[in-house]
Amino acid sequence: MLQKEQWQGFNGRIWREEVNLREFIQDNYTPYDGDASFLEGPTEATNTLWDELQKLQKAERDKGGVLDMDTEIVSSLTSHKPGYISEALKEKEQIVGLQTDKPLKRAFMPFGGIRTAEEACTTYGYTPNPELHKIFTDYHKTHNQAVFDSYTPEMKKARHNKIITGLPDTYGRGRIVGDYRRVALYGIDLLVEDKQKDFANCGDGTMTDDVIRLREEISMQIKALKDMKVMAESYGYDISEPASNAKEAVQWTYFGYLAAIKTQNGAAMSIGRIATFLDIYIKRDMDKGILTEKEAQELIDHMTMKFRMVKFGRIPSYNQLFSGDPVWATLEVGGLGQDGRSMVTKTDYRFLHTLENMGPAPEPNLTVLYSERLPKAFRNYAAHISITTSSIQYENDDVMRPVWGDDYSICCCVSATQTGKEMQFFGARANLAKCLLYAINGGVDEKTGQQVGPEYKPITSEYLVYDEVMHKYDIMMDWLAGLYVNTLNLIQYMHDKYYYEYALMALIDTNVRRTFATGIAGFSHVVDSLSAIKYAKVKTVRNEEGLVVDYETTGDFPKYGNDDDRADDIAVWLLQTFMKKLEKFHTYRDSEPTTSILTITSNVVYGKATGSLPDGRKAGEPLAPGANPSYGAEQNGLLASLNSVAKLPYEWALDGISNTQTINPDALGHSEEERIGNLVNVMDGYFSQGAHHLNVNVFGVEKLIDAMEHPEKEEYANFTIRVSGYAVKFISLTKEQQLDVISRTCHDRM
Amino acid sequence: MLQKEQWQGFNGRIWREEVNLREFIQDNYTPYDGDASFLEGPTEATNTLWDELQKLQKAERDKGGVLDMDTEIVSSLTSHKPGYISEALKEKEQIVGLQTDKPLKRAFMPFGGIRTAEEACTTYGYTPNPELHKIFTDYHKTHNQAVFDSYTPEMKKARHNKIITGLPDTYGRGRIVGDYRRVALYGIDLLVEDKQKDFANCGDGTMTDDVIRLREEISMQIKALKDMKVMAESYGYDISEPASNAKEAVQWTYFGYLAAIKTQNGAAMSIGRIATFLDIYIKRDMDKGILTEKEAQELIDHMTMKFRMVKFGRIPSYNQLFSGDPVWATLEVGGLGQDGRSMVTKTDYRFLHTLENMGPAPEPNLTVLYSERLPKAFRNYAAHISITTSSIQYENDDVMRPVWGDDYSICCCVSATQTGKEMQFFGARANLAKCLLYAINGGVDEKTGQQVGPEYKPITSEYLVYDEVMHKYDIMMDWLAGLYVNTLNLIQYMHDKYYYEYALMALIDTNVRRTFATGIAGFSHVVDSLSAIKYAKVKTVRNEEGLVVDYETTGDFPKYGNDDDRADDIAVWLLQTFMKKLEKFHTYRDSEPTTSILTITSNVVYGKATGSLPDGRKAGEPLAPGANPSYGAEQNGLLASLNSVAKLPYEWALDGISNTQTINPDALGHSEEERIGNLVNVMDGYFSQGAHHLNVNVFGVEKLIDAMEHPEKEEYANFTIRVSGYAVKFISLTKEQQLDVISRTCHDRM
Repeated sequence: MLQKEQWQGFNGRIWREEVNLREFIQDNYTPYDGDASFLEGPTEATNTLWDELQKLQKAERDKGGVLDMDTEIVSSLTSHKPGYISEALKEKEQIVGLQTDKPLKRAFMPFGGIRTAEEACTTYGYTPNPELHKIFTDYHKTHNQAVFDSYTPEMKKARHNKIITGLPDTYGRGRIVGDYRRVALYGIDLLVEDKQKDFANCGDGTMTDDVIRLREEISMQIKALKDMKVMAESYGYDISEPASNAKEAVQWTYFGYLAAIKTQNGAAMSIGRIATFLDIYIKRDMDKGILTEKEAQELIDHMTMKFRMVKFGRIPSYNQLFSGDPVWATLEVGGLGQDGRSMVTKTDYRFLHTLENMGPAPEPNLTVLYSERLPKAFRNYAAHISITTSSIQYENDDVMRPVWGDDYSICCCVSATQTGKEMQFFGARANLAKCLLYAINGGVDEKTGQQVGPEYKPITSEYLVYDEVMHKYDIMMDWLAGLYVNTLNLIQYMHDKYYYEYALMALIDTNVRRTFATGIAGFSHVVDSLSAIKYAKVKTVRNEEGLVVDYETTGDFPKYGNDDDRADDIAVWLLQTFMKKLEKFHTYRDSEPTTSILTITSNVVYGKATGSLPDGRKAGEPLAPGANPSYGAEQNGLLASLNSVAKLPYEWALDGISNTQTINPDALGHSEEERIGNLVNVMDGYFSQGAHHLNVNVFGVEKLIDAMEHPEKEEYANFTIRVSGYAVKFISLTKEQQLDVISRTCHDRM
Repeated sequence: MLQKEQWQGFNGRIWREEVNLREFIQDNYTPYDGDASFLEGPTEATNTLWDELQKLQKAERDKGGVLDMDTEIVSSLTSHKPGYISEALKEKEQIVGLQTDKPLKRAFMPFGGIRTAEEACTTYGYTPNPELHKIFTDYHKTHNQAVFDSYTPEMKKARHNKIITGLPDTYGRGRIVGDYRRVALYGIDLLVEDKQKDFANCGDGTMTDDVIRLREEISMQIKALKDMKVMAESYGYDISEPASNAKEAVQWTYFGYLAAIKTQNGAAMSIGRIATFLDIYIKRDMDKGILTEKEAQELIDHMTMKFRMVKFGRIPSYNQLFSGDPVWATLEVGGLGQDGRSMVTKTDYRFLHTLENMGPAPEPNLTVLYSERLPKAFRNYAAHISITTSSIQYENDDVMRPVWGDDYSICCCVSATQTGKEMQFFGARANLAKCLLYAINGGVDEKTGQQVGPEYKPITSEYLVYDEVMHKYDIMMDWLAGLYVNTLNLIQYMHDKYYYEYALMALIDTNVRRTFATGIAGFSHVVDSLSAIKYAKVKTVRNEEGLVVDYETTGDFPKYGNDDDRADDIAVWLLQTFMKKLEKFHTYRDSEPTTSILTITSNVVYGKATGSLPDGRKAGEPLAPGANPSYGAEQNGLLASLNSVAKLPYEWALDGISNTQTINPDALGHSEEERIGNLVNVMDGYFSQGAHHLNVNVFGVEKLIDAMEHPEKEEYANFTIRVSGYAVKFISLTKEQQLDVISRTCHDRM
């Protein structure tokens, strides 16, 4: 059993015998069920640095969204000299480390795609060195190039017509969470040793392609670990050995994360579940009397400030999908252990408290792993933070824990993965609403008139017949599921080949479990359209070519979002049916297929590409985001809406079911206390039904309209809202996205 | 059925419907059974250019073996501006195209390994641009790096101890022959169309790793074809369309080959079987009266001159294995069609005649596909060329044709592949002599004392017992075969990943058959050692650690190379046994395992690493090359030696059985006519027994000794000899290699 002086005072055995953070946490954390009164405000250093950072953020906005970009250096673990928020203030930075040599300067990251990296620069007026173009064109192929070189015409057509969409073929797939805590608990040298053992045990000597690929990957991971030491050394830290105190634990953990964001610009770059872990170090130092609450909060504030600074070069098409420059630096608090103990610690409070000490902010994407068994005081504090900042989201620990255990992280918006034991092949979405239109039109796209799907017989009747539509939809979904899965197979293969996440995978078990994350767009519109066909009368409107391009629906029909089983049963059927179809197909590296109902802000761009639907939604209008009921469909208040969404079984959408709701403060109550009480009650009720996720916004539409019209007002600089899957500064959204948010249901009654 | 104006006068259908050179040749060639009297001497242009080239070759020798090297440009199809033998004489060059912008200037080719490419430069005093180091280290990994990153410790140890050896992990695997004739017959545009169809038909939509890999490869092939057009354009030729006359056919074919040698520096870069094909164009032009024999010969001479200029940057360890700067620009003449017609044409003569027009030369590696059914006049002419130049080799068309059809090419020294339909994963050799010593010493290396093989019980007796040795040898070969095959699996995987032969594979069928070419070193010594143990008394001599390091053999025993079945049966057993063991293991891309008995000049370096053997060969002495009997073993003249080798069944060594013999001119006869007659008789007899290969040297030892001592003599400048698997200028060999050649049996009697 390994002993390290840095581990003095820690309990437990298994985590000393093998890399096992979960066991370390369970053996050592101290649950906290008190209230928030212990929390401290910001230190002078925190205020000074945060002011400085806000100035930089303002300058960034004033420059059109980007402050500075690298055009010469290809980002790597060791490519940049150390950077600080301000050279003059660097002594105040308790936690150091930037992606490049300057704050908010975006790195040049071409491995995902040289054209993408270049476009990210030129969009903002920067010109990358043409030599880099030559290198990443003539000498090193990029992920993006390889994918497009290898696509089938069918894939390109389906992609172009946006029936499969948002694919990670022009951006990094992300959604992998390195177990950054490992750097703190073990230090790099032990981690290298561990990976070297894995390398020695990789395969029985028979060199199949799988074994060879894995051997090379482990070798890259080991190199990455060694480079992390060099990176940390440049900031004056030797991370060979375990962290010996709280400050080092925070810093070492952050260095692990910094390694990730220096080498990958994935769509989501989550931090993971670090609060309970860090609390162990903080408590140990406090018990020793070498750390005060003020100092502890300062460490968390400064670390959080770094998470607020993560930036990547992005291209306009990416920004359309994921509006407002999100990076999904997702970080979890709360949750229960499998032994039933609350995992809430004082540091879980401290992370939420950063939203008070430094005001609301979209990053890190703070996520409360919710259970009605969490301490009441903590649930109240979270509700308080929601009501005052609209910056956090909730996910149901009681449905996730049985699947992922008690040390999962949220790897993107809402998707859980076991920390350090899993990775996800992210795969964006299939537009099931468009698929319904293809079923009706025999595979011809309703917008472009192209034959995209198989040339099945179209529906020729004037009025739609439910059974006929259902049969045709079923076989069209078969086609879509197969094409979608195989397109993702190709993308994931090339990502591994050309843009492997060595620095992240270095902090994940070698024998990793892989999920294959698909997604559904247009969910509520399919449900309501099928309901309309079943319960009302839907007449087709055809263009000159006979293509159905619009629908006239007469009569009433039940809609998803009103706790009406007639509609909600269709929703459950749809989810299960599509998931079962996905499972039929070969998936890359024998990964386990999952799906999500989650569109992020891409609901707007997906909607643009989708024709009119029988539910009354007109061509080009945004789709409802995620698993949300459609705009205007909810007629029976917040609780009825939540009840509908809660019926969707999480087991068929293990990648997540995203629900975003906005509640007028007045609907929640007339005092802070009443609002907190009601919000906690709403969530207790919602999650106890097995619902998965809730984004909570507490404001009225008037505030949104005012912010849209007067973005220059000081009060809106950090005005943050939850959209489907993340938080965003409202004024950073495009006008189109702002209008979409404004048009969504704001519940004025429960 | 496609019609092209360039095809006027050609017969046949199938080759118009699909890319099929074999059918084109069979439908159109004109066998020639006359003698050599039609041949013409060199033109003034040929003489002038050849003089110029000889000056350059002398300058190259004077500079230590390398005339010039690129240190700035990474070689690609389009990296260099056009180059000529001499700018002043370029109007005289009928066939144009150099690897770089200057004659004999070696290109910088880092994809196989940046350190190798750099070492090739620094060895000769050149310094590559350090920026290239950064690019091929930080941004693009190379084949060499990837292999060494992924090797197991066991593989590294086996490699270091040279029980598996000569592996293509520090050099390109080569041995792929593009069907360069396709460029001439079809032009690039049709070939692109054909590959685009293959791309469309690649896979049924299920994206397994294999399908994805192949799709990407086809996309690379298509890009390569397009780049070939750009390359040819720089020389003023548009190769989009088929060649319309003989000159274009030669030029287009050469451009195909030039594409290969600009992008790959494989150990062997064969040209393939082009003589009969080109003859069709030459005859058509002659029949039209637009080409004379003098002009036809000039085309072939100028093309051949280009083949004599092929150069690669090589490192010292490569030169040790493959001494004298060979490139295996192998080119075949002769052979029969499957319909029984001789495929000898006048152009087959013309290629052999280049050795008279421009004197002997090691490249192209001219290979006569031999059969006693070839026209007598042609066999006589080939024998005449052998006797006067010692520059050509013979391979048995009668054993290869049933396996590979009648359009195979020799892809290296002696290995056949179907042209345009196959590729080979080249894998160098397992040292079976060392394996025998491991069997005796329980897996411990007799030179280094390291435990390399499995820790089996060693032999502890003073005298070796045949049955015990055979049992231990059997299980040690099991281990070696598995390790060897898996090491090659890893190498081939990485070669495909980092140094894929896109330009060569572009000229090969997409649905390619792959062979997995292993090889055996130390063959004759194992046979004789086992014979010694069986028929004589072998006493072990142990060092202080008890390791057997020498043997004292008393009594007489039969030796391989004397037509004695007692020894030769062991030889057959050994070959079959090892081949069967190889077949047990998984091979990369489901390739078909083959083996060879072929060591090239590496017999010297392999011998250095091998301890003393029971057959009397002492530690460090060279092994016999290829399938040759051991030095001094042959006691019964040339024919007895040939009879022994002829007993090895080709079907168990489809990668080739190399035999190199030197005959004193006097032993062959006292007149040119007598010598020709005898040599033809020897070969008829040898090959009719099913033997595979013969390198024929006709000179006495005195000439070798004189050349070694007086390399400056004008007469030795182009003095060429056949070594195991290729031809080489004797004065280009290292002293060590020269001494080895001198020590080999020179037959003074038949």
